[in-house]
Order: sequence, then C-alpha cells, then structure tokens
Amino acid sequence: MISIGLVFIMHLGFASLESGLTRSKNTINILFKNVMILAIGLSTYAFFGFSLMYPGEAFAGDYFGFKGFGLPLPNGGLTETYNVGYTFYTEFLFQAMFAATAATIVSGAVAERIKINSFLIFSLFYVGLIYPMVGMWHWGGGFLAEMNFHDFAGSTLVHSVGGWAALIAVILLGPRIGKYTADGIKPIFGHNVPLATLGVFLLWFGWFGFNGGSVLSADPATVSLVLVTTSLAAATGAVGAFFTSYIKFRSYDVTMILNGVLAGLVGITAGADVMSPNEAMIIGAISGGLCVLAISTIDRLKLDDPVGAISVHLVCGVFGTLAVGIFGDKAGLGQLWIQTKAILIIAGFCCLTSFVILYAIKRTMGLRVTAREEIEGLDTHEHGMTAYPDFRLNEH
Amino acid sequence: MISIGLVFIMHLGFASLESGLTRSKNTINILFKNVMILAIGLSTYAFFGFSLMYPGEAFAGDYFGFKGFGLPLPNGGLTETYNVGYTFYTEFLFQAMFAATAATIVSGAVAERIKINSFLIFSLFYVGLIYPMVGMWHWGGGFLAEMNFHDFAGSTLVHSVGGWAALIAVILLGPRIGKYTADGIKPIFGHNVPLATLGVFLLWFGWFGFNGGSVLSADPATVSLVLVTTSLAAATGAVGAFFTSYIKFRSYDVTMILNGVLAGLVGITAGADVMSPNEAMIIGAISGGLCVLAISTIDRLKLDDPVGAISVHLVCGVFGTLAVGIFGDKAGLGQLWIQTKAILIIAGFCCLTSFVILYAIKRTMGLRVTAREEIEGLDTHEHGMTAYPDFRLNEH
Amino acid sequence: MISIGLVFIMHLGFASLESGLTRSKNTINILFKNVMILAIGLSTYAFFGFSLMYPGEAFAGDYFGFKGFGLPLPNGGLTETYNVGYTFYTEFLFQAMFAATAATIVSGAVAERIKINSFLIFSLFYVGLIYPMVGMWHWGGGFLAEMNFHDFAGSTLVHSVGGWAALIAVILLGPRIGKYTADGIKPIFGHNVPLATLGVFLLWFGWFGFNGGSVLSADPATVSLVLVTTSLAAATGAVGAFFTSYIKFRSYDVTMILNGVLAGLVGITAGADVMSPNEAMIIGAISGGLCVLAISTIDRLKLDDPVGAISVHLVCGVFGTLAVGIFGDKAGLGQLWIQTKAILIIAGFCCLTSFVILYAIKRTMGLRVTAREEIEGLDTHEHGMTAYPDFRLNEH
Repeated sequence: MISIGLVFIMHLGFASLESGLTRSKNTINILFKNVMILAIGLSTYAFFGFSLMYPGEAFAGDYFGFKGFGLPLPNGGLTETYNVGYTFYTEFLFQAMFAATAATIVSGAVAERIKINSFLIFSLFYVGLIYPMVGMWHWGGGFLAEMNFHDFAGSTLVHSVGGWAALIAVILLGPRIGKYTADGIKPIFGHNVPLATLGVFLLWFGWFGFNGGSVLSADPATVSLVLVTTSLAAATGAVGAFFTSYIKFRSYDVTMILNGVLAGLVGITAGADVMSPNEAMIIGAISGGLCVLAISTIDRLKLDDPVGAISVHLVCGVFGTLAVGIFGDKAGLGQLWIQTKAILIIAGFCCLTSFVILYAIKRTMGLRVTAREEIEGLDTHEHGMTAYPDFRLNEH
Repeated sequence: MISIGLVFIMHLGFASLESGLTRSKNTINILFKNVMILAIGLSTYAFFGFSLMYPGEAFAGDYFGFKGFGLPLPNGGLTETYNVGYTFYTEFLFQAMFAATAATIVSGAVAERIKINSFLIFSLFYVGLIYPMVGMWHWGGGFLAEMNFHDFAGSTLVHSVGGWAALIAVILLGPRIGKYTADGIKPIFGHNVPLATLGVFLLWFGWFGFNGGSVLSADPATVSLVLVTTSLAAATGAVGAFFTSYIKFRSYDVTMILNGVLAGLVGITAGADVMSPNEAMIIGAISGGLCVLAISTIDRLKLDDPVGAISVHLVCGVFGTLAVGIFGDKAGLGQLWIQTKAILIIAGFCCLTSFVILYAIKRTMGLRVTAREEIEGLDTHEHGMTAYPDFRLNEH
Repeated sequence: MISIGLVFIMHLGFASLESGLTRSKNTINILFKNVMILAIGLSTYAFFGFSLMYPGEAFAGDYFGFKGFGLPLPNGGLTETYNVGYTFYTEFLFQAMFAATAATIVSGAVAERIKINSFLIFSLFYVGLIYPMVGMWHWGGGFLAEMNFHDFAGSTLVHSVGGWAALIAVILLGPRIGKYTADGIKPIFGHNVPLATLGVFLLWFGWFGFNGGSVLSADPATVSLVLVTTSLAAATGAVGAFFTSYIKFRSYDVTMILNGVLAGLVGITAGADVMSPNEAMIIGAISGGLCVLAISTIDRLKLDDPVGAISVHLVCGVFGTLAVGIFGDKAGLGQLWIQTKAILIIAGFCCLTSFVILYAIKRTMGLRVTAREEIEGLDTHEHGMTAYPDFRLNEH
C-alpha cells in the first residue's frame, strides 16, 4: 500500500523531470500531458486494462484474455476478504499506477512538438490495450511466465514497452526545429534544472515503491535486499555517468548525472531480487555509462529525444533484462537466451502496435503541431497561457 | 503513523499550489503564512485544541467539552501502553496535522491582499477553537455522531469548515485591485504553474494519508478500498474538469485540470469508505465538472478567490457530503436528510463564528493591506524581501 | 524500511534548500554537488564505511574497528534470515543514507566558492572515514556507548559532525566576494525562496524517518512519541524564530522561520525519545531563537555561511545534546557532564580531522575557485551550463 503512494510520486517525478529539461514555452503543455496521462491511465485501467492484464480463468489463453468491462468487486463484496499483506484493491491500484508509466516515458521523447490531442489518444490505446496485453504475458500468467522469463519489476515489461514506443514516435515525428542544422547538432537546454533534479530525486524515491512493492508479499528479507540493490545501482549509475561523461566530454554536466541515476534504476529493475549488493553496483555503473554513450549516439543518429528517454528506459531496460542472465542468482546461458527471446518478442510487438497507432493518428488528425506553433511555443497556442507570466524570458 | 507524514506533506502541497497560482510579488507572504499556520496549528492544538476536540468524559456534553490545557501524557506515562496499531500520540499528531488544514484552505482564498498579522490571529482562533469544536460534534462523540451523520474523512468537517470561512473572508475583504474592472473580469494568472502542479500532486499523495489514515485501525481491506476510491475520484475529477472546461470554454487550461483533481479528492472524502470504485469514479467526475462551473460562477459573482478554494473545498465538500446519501452503501432519503442537516448546522456555525472573528479583526487591526502595498506587492512591504531577486520581472 | 525512503528525501530537501538560498549563477554547481554526495556516500559506505562503523567482533576496540572491504552478505546468504522488523540490509541502507548527510551539511556552508573536485574529495574522506569512526564510538558499541552518552538520532553524531567540519571549512575558505565590505555586511539573498521552502518541508518530512526510524525496532509506542516530540519541536522552532527575529529585527523574514524549523528539528534529535511533548516544545522554541541569534552572531564574526548551516546544525546540535542533561527522563548533572564530554571529544576529533583533510586539499589542488569564476558564477565555469537559460537575470 505504501508502495502505491511511492509509485504515484513517480508521476510527479516524470512531470518535473520532463518540464525541467525542456523549454519554458512548452511547460504548460508537458504538465497538462502528464496530469492527463495519469488521469486517463487510472480510468482506463479500471474500465478494461486490469481485466485484460489479469484475466484469470475466463477466456484466458497464453497470449490473450479478458475478464469484462469495469472493475469487478473482489471476493466478499465492497470490503473484501483478503490474504494477509495483500488485497485485490492494492494489486489493482499498484498495477494501475504502473500502467500509466509506459505512456509517461513516451511523453518525454515526443515533447515540444506533438499535438496534445494526438498524444492523449495514443496514450488511451497504449496504456489501455497494449501495456496490459504485454503485462498479461508475464505477470498475468501468460507464455513469458511459462518460459521462465525473469523481469522482476519491469525493465522490459514497463520501461522497454515505453521505450520502443518512444523510439517509433521519435522517428515518425522528426526532430524539433533548429536541433539538427547545417552547422551541426545544436543543444537545446532545459529551462529549469532544479525542477529536473527534483524530478530525479522523486523518481528514485518512487522506485523504492516500484521495486520494493513488486515483492508482493512484503517479505522483509526480500524487500530490504531489493531496496539495497535499487539504491546502490542508482548511486553507481551516477558515478558511472560521471566518469563516462568526464572522460569522453571533459564535462560536469549535471543532466548526465541525473540520467545516470535513472539509468542505474532502470538497469537494476529486472534483477533487483536476484543480485547481491556488489553485483547491483556493477550493473548500476554499467547502466550509467551506457546511458551517456547512448545519449550521444542517439543524438548523432538525429533522433531527437529531448529528455533522453530512449537511452534511459529502452537501452538500459534492455541491458538490465540481459543482466539477469549475466549476473546474480539466475546467471547462465540458458537464462540469457530466454531473456533475449522475450526482449525480441516484446520489441516486435511494441514497435508494430505503436507504429500502427501512431501512423493511423498521423494520417488522420496529424501528430505534429505547425512550425509556427512549435517556434512560438505550445503553451500559447494549445493552452492560451504561459507557465511563468511574471518573468521576462530570453528570445530564442 | 505513515499517514501523519502524508498529511504533513499536504501542507507543502497547499503552500506550493497557492504560491504557484498567485503573483510572484506575494510569494514570500504566502510561504510565510503557510509555514506559520502549520507551526501555530500544531502548537495550539497541543495546548488546547486536542482537549476541546476529544474531551473524553470530563465536562463533555453533546455540543461542547474540554479536558484542560496542555497535552496530557497518555496511559502508562511517557511511552504509553497502547492498543495494537493505534496510539494516543499517533491520534494526536494525525488530528493536529488535520486541524491546520482548515486555516490553509482560507489562506488561498484571501491571498494577495490580507494583512499577515490579521491572518495569523484569525488562524489562531479558527484552528485553535472553532475547528476542534466542530470536530468534537462528530469525531469527538458529539451530537452529529449520535444522529448518524457520515463524513468519513472530512468533506464537511475539514473542507467545508475551511470553505465557509474562506467565503466569509472573501466577502469581507473584497476583490484584489484590478480584478473586476469596468471592462469586465480580468484574469490574474499564477506566476509558476510547475509549482502549482507540484502542489496538486503532493496534495493527492497526501490524500492517501488523509483518507487512508482515517481508517484508524489500518484494516487492510478498508484502507485499500479507500485508496482505490480516492485515486479513481481524483483521476475522474481531472477528466470531468477537462471535458467541462473544453465544452464550456474550448480551453486546455491546466489549472482547471489541477482543480479538477482536488475537486475529485474533496468530493470522495466524505464517502471514501462506502463507495464502490465505479461510484467513486462517478462522484469524482461530477466533482471535477462542478468545480469548473463553480469557479466561473463565483468569479461572475465578483467573489475574488485567487486559487479557487471555495469551489474546490466548499462546493465539492458539500456535494461530497450529500453524495453519501445518493451513492454507495448508505444511500437513501433518510441519510440524505441527515447529511443536509449536518451541512446546514455546520454552515451556520462556521459562517457565524468566522464572521465574528474576522469582523472583530477588521474593526480593530484591519484586515486588508493598503492599496499601495497591494500593488507593489506584499513581499516588499510586509517582509522586506522578494522571492526571486535574481530574475527580471515583467511590470504589472 | 519506510524510514529509509524518508531519510533519502532529506537529501532532496538539502539540495532544494541550498540551491534556493544561494544565487542562480551557482545552482547547477549545488545540484551537482548534492547528487554526487549521495552517490559517493552510498558507494563508499557500502565499500568500507559500514565495516568501519559496525565492525562487530573483528578487530573492534573501543575506539576503532574494521570488518573488511565490500558489503558482506548477511546471515543466510542473499536473502537473509532476519529478526522480525529489522534486517541487516535495512540497517545498512538506513545508516548509509545518514552518512551522506554529514557532507551535505558542509556543502551548504561552503557554497558559491568551493571547487567542485576539492569538495568531492573532501566528502569521500569525511563520509567514508571520519563519520563512520565517530559513529562507531557510539552506535557501533564504542567508548561513548559505554560511558552512557545519550544521542538518540544524532544531534551530535550527525549534525555536529557535519557542523564542525562546516565551521573549519568556512574559516579556511573565507567569505564570498562582496559579502563583508568596507560599508558593512551586505546580505546576499537566495534566488528562489519557494525552492528553499520546499526544501525545509521535505527535511521536516524526512526527519520523521530520521528520528522515527532511529527507534530501530519500530516499537509503536516509542515511534509515536518520537514523531510527536519531533513535530512539536519543529513547530515551536518556527514560533521561537518568529518571535526572536521580530523582537530583535522587526522582520518577517521567511528564511529565519525556515531555519527555525530546522533548528527545532536538530535540537530535539538527541533527546526525541526521552522528552515529553511539552519539554519538546520548550526545546524547539529555544533552538529556534538560538538559531536566529547564532546566524547574526556568526555573520558579525565575518564567517560567511550562505545557508546558516553552522547555526542550525552545529549550534542547535550542541544545544540539543546538552538538553538531554537538562530536560526529560535523563536530566541530571551527571548526564549533563557526560553529554559535555562527548561533545568536546567529538568537537576535537572532527575539527582536527576536517582541518587536516581540508588543509591538505588547500595546499595541493586548492579549495577555492578564482575570483573571476566566483563573480561570473560557478555554473558557467565549472559546468558550462546555467540552471535557467530561458530567463533573463539581473546583473549582480
């Protein structure tokens, strides 16, 4: 139950991080998107997502199942009969808070140029349908669970599910105006670094719930191991990002450190329950370094991801999932092959479905705002208000 | 105990929301007010409020009781003997954190024009005396408890108690200079929307404690139901506000969505323990819509409420209390009549007492700053400092 | 376990407070420092700090012990066998979060002029070596524990350990340019007061974990007493600071109130488990007043402490430790003498060691940035970026 509150706070973390790392002229837009994602995510998950993800016996196969519309009452009616430490409602709410995360990851990558309505409709389908279907394959007792895939709290099932869609969306949308010019790659700085830092701390805080809460029975021994592996991976993620960015770019860029923290967190998420603290530190450090390299590589590929979501959630999500086959209690070639297969299947499914949804939106309502709206800012055009009306802004 | 921390965080939420939704020239003033409300609230509640609200046997009637000054030691001395899951100190602190909320609600409505000393003195009386007396009627075993009134976590006992005083204060104070002009109603935008958004997320987070903690025995079945109804009402509150403001004003105003979240939370607070998730979603959606309509109606009545406190806490607090008689396990005409009676009695008492206190202050020390102080900002005049000295501000 | 999350949030609180109370040209620097302190703190504490602080039988004397490098696995392997309510991992992580606090206290005092690399190296030694050695004397079963010293959650062992180093660092560094001029003391205002306020609220929130979690067995009776004494001391800390600053300076300076809250929290930390609520209120009020007086005294001594860290953590840490001999269950001349001896021993050790480390750094890599870097801002020079690139800043 406490974990629900913590996972909830991750949504504030994402909202702060994203708005901090983008320009002030699009801040209202990002805040609007992030509040609505959570609202829509919770509502649709109650209406049908939960029934898709945990179909129980009814209609359930290995690949698909559905329990019906609306949130059914649990055993025993309104106030259920329950097992100690674990209730139907707790499960629902925890999963619902998770579900909205997938869309939030996409939100960062498409920031500053996507149409608000188009994004909300995408979120509706992706959070309402695609995420629960993939989730069912593993957590709902589907074929990934049967083949012994290990993804403790969602390096693949949450982070890469969001990450693949972010990648597809970034390709379909194209870069922000002025980012890739004839003169080379122009960095576009975020407008409020303290806000972004706040976001990362809140995400770390929330991750205690994300990972800790995934030990569903709240067994103190496992929960406390998971909290230690999670925290140490975050810490060494920062250290790994620090050394990588210092060695490669001679920079003390705080945004790299912040993404390093998130990279460490995403990287440990798949195996937080099977790693020793020392292995967690190694995984964190690799994730932090990997993320810095991925950010500059993705930028060189002219994929414009304003907040580094693809590097953090997709690249480190994939690495973390593979790491379960390399480090820790489950290490082994057999497990590594299982992990790889699952990654590829989910990659295929997510890329395909997100492409279909996004392409359909692109051909009908359009994905991207006009050049004028983008240059003048989405806040003025889509929302008729600005985030900081009292302050004088620089032209740019 | 965890809930205490969460309810505490609501005070940060209120401080952030209020300062975000007002102008930068009054930010110090709002922060000062909100920190002092909490400090004064906790101190006075320890000194006499708790004894008024939970008089126990001593002097207790159905309408009034008092146990004496100072916080008595519990059974068993400093470290008490206690019942499992529940202690005297926990109860005290949880209630003390609640108490200060009533004054914070008023704080938002009177922002940008009230004298700081006058407000602090009002808070002292309202939090120290009026709130505990009303609370005693229901939670302290008084006549409302006897007549079977149902207000789970305070739609009426907390939110409308604050809301009625906010209404009276707004009437006695008058609108901010420049708000209602010959040319019509001029919107005064908040200076920091990310800060306001942070505030709403923190309030939602805190509400898990506000409502969850009100299940005093921490029975997992009820707590988890309450967390689900609370979250779903917040989510559909945002959705309801979105559609209402889109249909009525064709706007994507993020502050409406934020107030919609709060409206959903206030609306479900009275009946969070007796509603099914689906009923919670309906109550949230109605509250969200109602709040948007109330904000524009109150503005047309030339009642200047800078943050929408009356719409959120009073209007949705009343609706949520009535909703207990309309939806859920307790629905019925008899219950609806009980709810209505309680609302009316509390309305009368709070309007009367807040009028007496505020009017007495108005006639003696004055309620409102001078026009010059208001135009130049309360920060410079009352505090001799500004919130953002490094930044260049627009004139207005 | 919950307390771990709360103590973690204190690091966000410190980062927000410090960056809010300093100038915008040094914001990136402060955020960078605070994220890295936490990352380095957790990593080194895992690598050797924990083994120094809790040496167990191996090599342990009364003054020094060491268990070996790396975090050993607990009893029972990866997922340990544990005692109810308390695990090896929980203990490690809670202590690791504490450890980094000592360096964070220093960070505020040296802000706006220290070299980033020099500070990180200092932190490495102070958090990795000095803090655990002092901690071992008391919490690791060393000679302070044997002599019956009482410091419940670290007024001395955490706050003054940081505070003494802060004092030494401030002396060795010298004041910021422009602070003490021929025309007198020039106040240098913080650039973002809402951020500082957020920081203080988060610190208060985190203190529930800092103090509450120090009741290691989570005995509800003691934890709830501790939460009450902690909260009431914070509240009366604000009230004490309010009256002191009003009487002495006729000011409504919100930063004084904020420091008053922290002062109350630091003051109660040593005796939170042995004070009655009423005694806690007295200790809080004295701490709040003391802190305001200390801030102005330290400023008159031309010791430039941008955030008031010495006044809050050192002065009130010492007072709080003495208060255990004056108020509450342990009061008595004997105890007061024990408290005094422990304070003096730790003062000597911390001043000496921090002087040695800092002086060595000063003579080799240098402690302070150049005058040009300081005037133009550390963000541009050390980090090549600014915290708020979209906003126009005032020259100063």
